[in-house]
Amino acid sequence: MPNAKITLVEDMQFIGVADTGHAIVMDAPPSSGGKGTASKPSELLPMAFGGCSGMDVISILRKKKQNVTKFEINVSGEMAKDYPHMYTDMHIEYIVTGKDISEEAVKRAVELSLEKYCSVGATLGKAAKITHSYKVIQE
Amino acid sequence: MPNAKITLVEDMQFIGVADTGHAIVMDAPPSSGGKGTASKPSELLPMAFGGCSGMDVISILRKKKQNVTKFEINVSGEMAKDYPHMYTDMHIEYIVTGKDISEEAVKRAVELSLEKYCSVGATLGKAAKITHSYKVIQE
Repeated sequence: MPNAKITLVEDMQFIGVADTGHAIVMDAPPSSGGKGTASKPSELLPMAFGGCSGMDVISILRKKKQNVTKFEINVSGEMAKDYPHMYTDMHIEYIVTGKDISEEAVKRAVELSLEKYCSVGATLGKAAKITHSYKVIQE
Repeated sequence: MPNAKITLVEDMQFIGVADTGHAIVMDAPPSSGGKGTASKPSELLPMAFGGCSGMDVISILRKKKQNVTKFEINVSGEMAKDYPHMYTDMHIEYIVTGKDISEEAVKRAVELSLEKYCSVGATLGKAAKITHSYKVIQE
């Protein structure tokens, strides 16, 4: 049962603290009355998705003894034009760099994350259509 | 179209950077192979929800000339026991402290945020059943 406490600091700046005890600062951009000092709440969703699925994928690739030297994930989202600007689409791209990386291992790790393990993807996937791609760069 | 780039640092630690250019560190707890140095991706969802809706509510209350001296939001989530542990329920509680605060103004601001404006709430509400409450503390 994850809990978070979010406290107004000033203007539109808030600090959130969740169960692990780590704090996140959030702010609105100047166009929405904030000072742009920190992430917008809505952009935390693609970041959380990339982090969640990235942890699944890297841990599966490590179990499969893949020699990953660099791992990046790009998440792009689309939000509805009308209020409340719900996320309607998200694309997640995994870029795995390493030595003798098995494309099949990457494909399977991504599938396992998106179909079985990633809580953030499963939650956001109820609102947004999620698509994915991956790229393997052999060093 | 919000975009985020998430890069593996080491172990299970990732850094996410989204359009505003601000970075968020994410990590898994030791029980999941990480070092617990930062927020878990899944707990960013209740934090983002509280920040998003909190920004709506405080800006509406300011427009209504409410003298808010403190504003806190608590979000508690429930996730399914089985993989992928999707969020199934979220409760958001708003605690507004101030002088001569109109309960009606708080009620209406919360309704407007949850029914009309908050993109994170609308997105998460497709997966989780969202309930809310509010408390007004007169100083």
